[in-house]
Amino acid sequence: MADATGQLLTYYHREFGIELSREHLNHKDELQAFPEAHQKLVYEFTFRTDFFRTMVVKEDCVRVMERLNKEFEVFIVSSAMEFPNSLSEKFAWLQEYFPFLHWKQFVFCGRKSIVHGDYMIDDLPHNLDGFNGEKLLFSAPHNLHFQNYRRINSWKEVENYFFPAD
Amino acid sequence: MADATGQLLTYYHREFGIELSREHLNHKDELQAFPEAHQKLVYEFTFRTDFFRTMVVKEDCVRVMERLNKEFEVFIVSSAMEFPNSLSEKFAWLQEYFPFLHWKQFVFCGRKSIVHGDYMIDDLPHNLDGFNGEKLLFSAPHNLHFQNYRRINSWKEVENYFFPAD
Repeated sequence: MADATGQLLTYYHREFGIELSREHLNHKDELQAFPEAHQKLVYEFTFRTDFFRTMVVKEDCVRVMERLNKEFEVFIVSSAMEFPNSLSEKFAWLQEYFPFLHWKQFVFCGRKSIVHGDYMIDDLPHNLDGFNGEKLLFSAPHNLHFQNYRRINSWKEVENYFFPAD
Repeated sequence: MADATGQLLTYYHREFGIELSREHLNHKDELQAFPEAHQKLVYEFTFRTDFFRTMVVKEDCVRVMERLNKEFEVFIVSSAMEFPNSLSEKFAWLQEYFPFLHWKQFVFCGRKSIVHGDYMIDDLPHNLDGFNGEKLLFSAPHNLHFQNYRRINSWKEVENYFFPAD
């Protein structure tokens, strides 16, 4: 839902004056795409105030989520516990861009193995691994080499998947 | 895990100068145990800074949780979303009293219907209703009239349930 890759690149550019392309991050774990000497600081970006609060929402995401929310019981399950500051920021971010979602639909967790459902859309294969329902891998630079799960490249494709009769 | 009832009574006493007993709350929804004219303010206690952070941990809870954590895959699933301030406070509270738990084991959610597992211990019957595994109702003044689920009255009883061979 949020463009975390873009946010990392923005912070990296601001801090180091180096403009990396999204393609530079392809096929690498997010941190390992940055020069080794910079990785510790890049990781620390994620603990800064506003890092999560100011992320850009992905194209078509708001519109497709609003549509999904009318037809399905939607939950937003976010790995937020690694970054305790992110808890209130993610909550505020969701309320800003998705006012049609109720807080009852939010789940902030450490491991996603605790949740179950009919479908899970996630960009991290390890979050999908233990899931009981249909697994959809949302494309991100760091997961382009994974073949295990049905791939979804955009929120437009999410829409096509769930509303094929359009 | 936290003595929410005690915290409400403490705040109520401090604010209104009235000392209610725990027994006064028996068989009533938490808010409805307070005089109607005070209910709105009592509800607002839960939005105050430190309301969740300063709760007393229940007797035997730390010891039994530590023991459970060695034998089972334990998750702490907390309805935290109604009170966004509580997110960081609950996180800090858990880290203070349960340093042996990892943040990967924390889940803050709105509705607990999204989680699954082998056992759920909860004081709210509606949280247990949709659960797939074994359901254990932890006694609280507000649930004493519910008969639907196996009742657990203390953390000592939790210990006896999971370690019957002691």
